[in-house]
Formats: sequence, C-alpha cells, structure tokens
Amino acid sequence: MGERSVDQASIKMLKKAAQEGIETAWERYEKQQPQCGFGLLGICCRNCNMGPCRIDPFGDGPEEGICGATADTIAARNLLRMIAAGAAAHSDHGRDIVTTLWETAAGEAQGYQIKDEGKLRSLAAEFGIPVEGRSKEEIARDLAREAMEEFGMVKGALKFLERAPQKRREVWQKAGIVPRGIDREIVECMHRTHMGVDNDYVNLVLHGVRTGLSDGWGGSMFATEFSDILFGTPEPVRGRSNLGVLKEDQVNIIVHGHEPTLSEMIVLAARDEELLAAAREKGAAGINICGMCCTGNEILMRHGVPVAGNFLQQELAVVTGAVDAMVVDVQCVMPALTGVAGCYHTKIISTSPKARFEGAEHIPFDEHHALDTARKIVQIAVDNYPRRKKEFVRIPEEEMEYMAGFSVEAVLKALGGSLNPLLDAIKAGQIKGIAAVVGCNNPKIPHDRGHLLLTEKLIKSDVLVVQTGCAAIACAKAGLLLPEAAAQAGPGLGAVCRALGIPPVLHMGSCVDISRILVTAAAIANALGVDISDLPVAGAAPEWMSEKAVSIGAYVVGSGVFTVLGSIPPVLGGKKLTELLTEGARSVLGASFAVETDPEKAVDLILEHIAARRKALGLEG
Amino acid sequence: MGERSVDQASIKMLKKAAQEGIETAWERYEKQQPQCGFGLLGICCRNCNMGPCRIDPFGDGPEEGICGATADTIAARNLLRMIAAGAAAHSDHGRDIVTTLWETAAGEAQGYQIKDEGKLRSLAAEFGIPVEGRSKEEIARDLAREAMEEFGMVKGALKFLERAPQKRREVWQKAGIVPRGIDREIVECMHRTHMGVDNDYVNLVLHGVRTGLSDGWGGSMFATEFSDILFGTPEPVRGRSNLGVLKEDQVNIIVHGHEPTLSEMIVLAARDEELLAAAREKGAAGINICGMCCTGNEILMRHGVPVAGNFLQQELAVVTGAVDAMVVDVQCVMPALTGVAGCYHTKIISTSPKARFEGAEHIPFDEHHALDTARKIVQIAVDNYPRRKKEFVRIPEEEMEYMAGFSVEAVLKALGGSLNPLLDAIKAGQIKGIAAVVGCNNPKIPHDRGHLLLTEKLIKSDVLVVQTGCAAIACAKAGLLLPEAAAQAGPGLGAVCRALGIPPVLHMGSCVDISRILVTAAAIANALGVDISDLPVAGAAPEWMSEKAVSIGAYVVGSGVFTVLGSIPPVLGGKKLTELLTEGARSVLGASFAVETDPEKAVDLILEHIAARRKALGLEG
Repeated sequence: MGERSVDQASIKMLKKAAQEGIETAWERYEKQQPQCGFGLLGICCRNCNMGPCRIDPFGDGPEEGICGATADTIAARNLLRMIAAGAAAHSDHGRDIVTTLWETAAGEAQGYQIKDEGKLRSLAAEFGIPVEGRSKEEIARDLAREAMEEFGMVKGALKFLERAPQKRREVWQKAGIVPRGIDREIVECMHRTHMGVDNDYVNLVLHGVRTGLSDGWGGSMFATEFSDILFGTPEPVRGRSNLGVLKEDQVNIIVHGHEPTLSEMIVLAARDEELLAAAREKGAAGINICGMCCTGNEILMRHGVPVAGNFLQQELAVVTGAVDAMVVDVQCVMPALTGVAGCYHTKIISTSPKARFEGAEHIPFDEHHALDTARKIVQIAVDNYPRRKKEFVRIPEEEMEYMAGFSVEAVLKALGGSLNPLLDAIKAGQIKGIAAVVGCNNPKIPHDRGHLLLTEKLIKSDVLVVQTGCAAIACAKAGLLLPEAAAQAGPGLGAVCRALGIPPVLHMGSCVDISRILVTAAAIANALGVDISDLPVAGAAPEWMSEKAVSIGAYVVGSGVFTVLGSIPPVLGGKKLTELLTEGARSVLGASFAVETDPEKAVDLILEHIAARRKALGLEG
Repeated sequence: MGERSVDQASIKMLKKAAQEGIETAWERYEKQQPQCGFGLLGICCRNCNMGPCRIDPFGDGPEEGICGATADTIAARNLLRMIAAGAAAHSDHGRDIVTTLWETAAGEAQGYQIKDEGKLRSLAAEFGIPVEGRSKEEIARDLAREAMEEFGMVKGALKFLERAPQKRREVWQKAGIVPRGIDREIVECMHRTHMGVDNDYVNLVLHGVRTGLSDGWGGSMFATEFSDILFGTPEPVRGRSNLGVLKEDQVNIIVHGHEPTLSEMIVLAARDEELLAAAREKGAAGINICGMCCTGNEILMRHGVPVAGNFLQQELAVVTGAVDAMVVDVQCVMPALTGVAGCYHTKIISTSPKARFEGAEHIPFDEHHALDTARKIVQIAVDNYPRRKKEFVRIPEEEMEYMAGFSVEAVLKALGGSLNPLLDAIKAGQIKGIAAVVGCNNPKIPHDRGHLLLTEKLIKSDVLVVQTGCAAIACAKAGLLLPEAAAQAGPGLGAVCRALGIPPVLHMGSCVDISRILVTAAAIANALGVDISDLPVAGAAPEWMSEKAVSIGAYVVGSGVFTVLGSIPPVLGGKKLTELLTEGARSVLGASFAVETDPEKAVDLILEHIAARRKALGLEG
C-alpha cells in the first residue's frame, strides 16, 4: 500500500481494509479508470440542455460547442464554476460564523460567548464602530450587522480589502476586479457561465479572480476573524496527531468537516461530568474527542485537541473499528463513510441542514440549542461504545506530537511583538523566503507525499513554511510542526527557529485560515513598502482536490503570490486559457500558476521564484 | 430544412446559410453527435479534482464516484448547479434593474426616468415605505434599498413571498424551503454541491426548489416590477414579428439578449433627429430597431417594437445579410454570432462587462452614460449600413402581426378591473384552465414545433395560454397572439376572447416575467381561497434549453404548478431522483414534473391534469 500513502498508520489501515473487504477511495479511484479525458482537460460543457458538448482535443472532431463556445471558453467557464463553488463553501462558512456571533450577542446562542474581546474591539474599530463605553454584546451586534452587509449587494465594497497593500489594491482597481459583495461575485460567476453570457476566457478568468478575492479577503476572512472573537484567537499549543490518538479504552468521537461551531460545543460537552460518568458506566475510561480535516484544525488550533488525520484518512479512521461516532458538518465528508461505518459499529452523525448523507443519523444542529445538541451527540457515542466489535478493533500505534496555534497574533507574539525579527532574518538571508504549503489529499497522488517532500525540502533550503488544512495535518503527523524539527531545517531557518522556540513549519489553521496567511503577507509587504507580489513568497497546493482549493488558488495568485499546483487542474484543453493562467496572468496580477506534479521540481520552481524576488528587492543570496 | 424548423422564414435562411457555407447551431449540433451518454443522464461528476467520475448506467461499472457519491447524488447535484446558474442569471438581471432604479432616483442614470409612478407607490406601500408627501425619487431610493437588502443575508426573508396564498406559504414552511435571500440560496447551492457536503438527493432537490423560489418570487419578480416602474407597465400593444421585420432600405439594428436597460435607450436614440439625418445621408430611409429573444420581448411589451425572432433565429438574422449591427447584452447570445457576422458585414457589439465575445466590438454600457452609449452604438450601425454586401442580402418576406403587453395590470384592465369575469369563465367551463407555455428553442426539437403544437391544441381545448420568452415569439410569428386567433380556439375560450377583444394566447413578457404568471396564479388562488396547486393550471416548456428554464421549472413546480418538459433534463441516470421529480414531489409540493417529448401526449397530460383539478374543485367539465 506504499504507493497509496507515505503515512504508516494509513498503510496499516489500508491493509486492514483490504483484509476485511472494505472499499476505500483508492479502490473507487481505480474503478473510475480511465477517467474521462474531456473532463480532465476541461473541455466538456453541460451548461445547457442543447448539450452536453465536447471539444476534440486533437482537432479531428468538433472545435466548438453547439452555441459556438470554444475550448478556451468552455474550460474557463468550468474553472469559474469551480471557483464559485469553492468561494461559496468558504463564504457560506463565514456566513454561519457571522450569524453565530450575531446570535451570541443577542444572547440567543446556547453555550457560546465572546472569548476574545480584544479582537472584537480592534475589529470593530477597523469597521468604524464605536467601542467606547459599550458592552461587548452591543459591539458584536453592530459588527455582525456590518459583516452581513458585505454579503449580497448592499455595501458594494469589502472592508478587509483595505488590509492589502496600496499597490495591490491598485492592481485590482486597474484590472477591474475589486470584489463588491461576497455572495454577489459568486452569483455573477454562475450568471456569466450561463449559456450565452460571458464567452471571453480572459474576462471569465478575471471575474474568477475577483470571486476568489471575495473569498480570501471576504468570506474566509470573516470566518477566521469572527471565529477568533467567538472561540478565542489561537496561541501556540501542543497536541497529538494521527490515528494513534484514538483510544482503545475510551469513547472515541471524531468531529469531521469544517465549521467550529458544533465541534467547540462537543469539546465542551465531553467534559460534562454526567456524560463522563455515563461513559465510565459503560466501561470506558473517558471520552476522547479527536478532530479530522478542518474541523480538526479548528479545535486543535484553539484547544490542542488531538487530530486523527486528514482527508484521505476519514474512511481509515472508521476502519480502526474504534470510532464510536463520527460527527460531520460540511465539506469534504465522503458519502462513502456510511457504507464503511456499516461494516463496523461506528455511527455517522450528520448535523448540518445543508449536508445530509444516506445512512447517516441526522441530528440537526442549531446555535439556539448548541450545547444540548452536543450533549445528545456525545450521549449517542457513549451508548454506542459497548457495541464495538472487539475483534475488529485495531488502532495503529502511530501518533506524533505537534505544535500549532500560529495565528497572526501568535506569530507576532513569538517574534516579540513586531515583524522586525522576521524581516531582518529575511533581509539577512537567514530565511530566504516564505512558502505557504496548503491544500487537500488526492488519490491521484500518494497520500501526504507531496506535502512532506515539498515541506522538507523547503525548510532545508531555509524557506519558512506556513500551512493550513490537510497539508498541516500531514506535516503534524511527520513531526515537522515541532520546534525540534528545526534540526531538519537549513542552518539559517534552523537558527531562527531555535532562537524563537518555534517550528520551521507554522500551522496557521483550517482552510479558511489561509486568510491569516494573506494578512501576514500584507503586513510584511506593508512593512517593506512593496506589493505582495514583490515578496520572496510562494504558494503550493501539492495534493489539492477540492473546488475550495481552486478559489484559494484564484485569490492567492490574485493577491500576487506565485503558486505551484501538484495535481493537474482541468484546464489544459484550453490552450490560451492555460497560457493565461501560467504566463499571461503575470502581466496583470504580478503572479501566475505553475503546474508541476513532481514535488522535487516544484521545490525548484519555488526556490527559483524566491531567489528572483530576493534579487529584485536587492537582498543577498 | 423542414426537420429543423417549422418556421418558413427560418427554413429559407437555413437554406441560404447552407448555400453560403455558413455553419449554424444545427450543424454544430450534428457534429456533437453522439452526445455523451453520461452527461445526458446526469451521472458525470466534475465537482472535485479527484474526478471526473462517471456512474455506469447499466450497473456493470462503477456505481459510485471516488467520494462515494451515487448516481442520485451526482445527478441531483448537477441539477442543483443548473438551478443555481439559472436563478443567478435572472437574479443578477434583477440586481441590475434595482441598481438602475437606485441611480435613477439619485439622478445619476442618464436618460432614465420613473415612468410608472403609480406602480412605484403601490410597491412602496407593499414594502411599508412611507409615500405620503414624498417625491417619487425619495420613494424609489427607499424601495431600491429595500430590494438590495433582499439579496445576500441581511433581511432573512423575501417580501414578495407574501403575495403567495397562505396555503402555499405553509407548504414552503413545512418543507423548510422558504427562501431567505436571493444571492444566499444560490451560494448555498454551490456550497451544498461542493465535494463532501450535501449527498442526499431529496435534501438537494428541496434546496433547489428553495433557490428557484428565490428567483421566481425574488430576483425575477424584482426584475419585472422594477422594470415596470422604470420603463412603464406594459399595456396591450401591436407590433410585427419574424425576420421579415428587417428592412432592406433602413439601418437594421437588432437588440439581443435580456435586459431592457440598454435597449430602451437604443429605442430612444433611434428616434434622435441627428442620427436619423446621418442615416439618410448614408442612403437609408430610416433606422429600424428590432428585438430578439427577451431583449426583444422587453421592448415589444412596452413599445410594440418589431421582434426579429427567437433563440434559434439569432444566427439566421445575420444570414439575411441585412443586419447592420446586432447589439447584445447577457444570456442566450451564441458566441458563434461573431463568426457568422464575419461572413457578412454585420457588427456584433457587446455591451455588458459580464459578457464579452471573441471578435465582437465591445462598447461598455453603464447607466451613467446610457443614452450617450446608445447613440454611439446607433452611429456605428448607421456607419456600417453602406458596407452591406447587397448580393448577400435576402430578407424573407414572412412577418406577422402580434398583440402583446399583457402585464397583470393589463389583464385586469382587459377583464374590466376585476378577475371575476375570468373566474366566472373558468367556473362555467368556458375556459377549462390556464396553461403557461414558456421556454427556449433547442436544436434537439424542430424549431418552434413544440410551442406551436402545444399552444394550438391547448387553445382548441378551451385552455387559455399565457406565454413569455421564446415560446411567445414562436406564437407571435404564427399569428396566435392576435385577437383574430380566437377563431382557432375552442368555442368557450373563443367566445371569451371575442367578448374581451383579447387573443387566446397572452404574451406576458420576457423570461423574468414568468413572475407575472406567478402573481396571476396567486391572485386567482387567493380569490378562490385555495392553493395554487388546486387550480386547473399547468406549465409547459416544450423546447427548453437554458439553465434558467431549470430554475423556472423549480419555482413553478415549487409554487404548485404541474409542469411538462419537452426536452429531457439530465437526471434520468438518477432513478430515485427521477421518481422524486416526477412523482414524489407531489406529496411535498402538490405538484411535479412530467417529461414528454411528444407534444400531442404533452397536451393530453395537461388536459388530464386540468380536468382532475376541475373535478376536485367541483367544477363542471
């Protein structure tokens, strides 16, 4: 199973699954071979009922769809819909957090409180909301209302864009891609890609970037900032990762998905004395809450809760036979889970009205009864504990300590309150640059291999790596999120890490928390008086899979950061489109994409880029 | 070419195109054969980069995608994205009209004025806006602001839903599908269909209906109502239709697309004495503005402007060789037009920042300089007139008079100010029921054949037909929109039409104006104290093609109206999904879809439905 994953715990569970006749994503991937070439190239169009249409990539068959759309138009439209879906996922997540803050301020959200009043007040000031002599609830109510107006069309401008360097805002202005409203840009994506609307691939891509920006500097940023207000701004924290965090003698509950609203309450409920007593009564030594995917990242960032794994481990966690309940909300939750769970005793519990699964138990979650719902869910898991089939339980021993919690605030604190030590290290060449290695897993690529190869080589080359999402979990499992990993870094970065007591790979949170990376990049650019695109900074998504990653790509490149993709986006059938994304974009946005499936070569591209930027800034080596 | 169209003008132009080596949608349709079976069945998924995935419809290959999504999940997700795109198109159109009213009220929209102050005041009252002693601009500003808040998430409820019968609103409440915000529901569609979110086809379809409702009772309704305020509420008006409206000795400008904002100004500019003089100077006898598709419908409803044709005639209009400029905005504009135009002298002028076309001249339109832009465009057409290649000019002689302009207000006026004469005729069985025959053209179906066969048979069976969009243009060309067509109606309907001086087929406007049909149906249901689903009313989209039609289908069925589709939606690969749409929906929504490609059988389904509803209401025959 080594060709499937580089993670030992996963390899063990893949073998167990094979022995027990359990099909996982890898088998389903094999069954899908060969995958549709038109789809892989992005030149299949289903946007109206005259179709479906396909463009012949070899030029022997149709060169246009029925309406006359070309390969470039079709691939660009498909790309735009991927961006729209990704931005929608993040922004709808942001909307839910905004709503929760609104209801918390009104005293209507059971169990929630405003944990970071300082952040609330500073954000309120940023939005021009009076703070003097007002209660945090009054301020929060006004702030949430302001945020609500940034969805839709009322305001016509996004406040957080002002965080970007002046030069970057001028780029957006000049290209006509300043986002106007979070929902609005997504809706316009869908409008433009409707039959007979936008047929110019350049115009389509520009709107895609605008939509991405409304995610990165809008929906995602609201999700991050408002989550910090509600649940606390992360600070460095230690915890453990990989499937070994599951406990044979405890009630194991995995919270999986993306939003912190429910998982925070489940963490709370699991400390409830009554429920702990109930667990003991069933013969369990305790209740063990573990995270998975970005729900995992949300609670590990704030509580150091153990994280059982990343995207491709969701089925494997069930295969341990030791998961009493897997609680899911939204995004990246495989519908296959219920089938796998059916082979063991695991209960899959869906909670979001937006996301139901055949075969799952649905316990609707709403903020008004959040803690009650969380208690109910924990109780179900406790009750399910005795139903474990002992003979099928096997928890791999692999687990690894991590240090996470690097919010922007935490980074600043680690630096002693100012960016200067970091800037000095970059200027001096101790740190050559910063790379954001982010994104998903994808069965097209050996699980975690891309993340680890890239990250290991980058830190060895004195590039500080910042991470979120499944990439960060991959590195957590490999021990790269520990200060001790400074030993694996190059001499410059290693020395800086040792001096500051930080890891060479900083875990900044869940996928919406890439907004923290944007804020960091903007702050560095502002401090140096340059544009983000001038910085020795790059992005990489070596194993990306989801449409959210496409939206992220759009806003990261749109914010001026060169980005290398490790899995091939479905655009290659549009030759001019591909040229635009990989070359032409530079002249408009100051950044572009590269596609490189070989992690070694991807590192080279990033290092070359960083070297070129250093040179342009007049920095040594 | 008789198998391609039943419209003589179109058949002639198809022959001319063939002689001149011009490829049209029909040739491109043939080149796409065989179309992808997975796409046709709706069981191809491209919603993440693990894929694309395909389900084997014969059960020999994969039954699940890589994530575990089943055929029903995949087909339902694809359907939801179609609804999202359709609702986005309509609602973004609504947004633009709301913006134009806002700017008109502020005195910032050149050339626009509030034409229907009565409607402004009554709508303002509906929204609880004070009207006494206030200027129309003050009122319009408040009203536009209220409308803006219905996009996004600020309000959390759509005002126009209150127009629906109490029983219908209870249906929505019970099913949990009351739309909360126009953009919001579309964004949630995209979120839910993201990898690993909603995987329950029932839950997906319910949200699709909610999104449709936010179009029909939201975005589309704002587009209609606010257009009436700005451009006047339509009243019965006569004009001419089909390609014969083009004039050999005049500058011919076709306005094509969907929004009335620019076309209204072009109609105005074409009356400009300076431009008329310029045209005469170039040897033209005048400037002839003609409409096409729904831009055509918008201006024919209000000005009786000639309409050159419907969707599948857009290329054929250029093939006449007599079009000096075709001005396009958004939706249903074939990118192939620029290629066809390249073979003649026609200029294709794109105007919307949302919709650009390779090879078109782009003249950006914005409300602040609307009339100036319109004048510039007319000037380009005038200048292009001498470039006509006389030897390639052939305008078919077919043209037909129509009577259009049946807004709800106009219908009421025709009935003498009250619905009672209509209700009495329905109760007495003179009129058996009402059928909305709407939708596009589709090369899968002989052009106009479905619209005409259905409409002719329905009116012959004493069913009053109401229409919008390309369906209405089809019937206009066939002379069915004339009071004289009462002769083709059954004895009951014929007598009513003769008594009132109205056609048996009422043209209610563009595709967003299906909102007028909703309002009419709601008013009838309210008058009878029943739900819309209790009425002897049905819908049909015999030649539908666009995703807007899918959104329309969602809100029409969601509003309780049984609807027959003439082209097959890409859902059949999801068997449970198909069952839900055609059967199961009835128990939740009181209405469902039928798919029937044979127009004769489609009529039978509608008549059976109407008879059953009459019986249930205790009405004779």
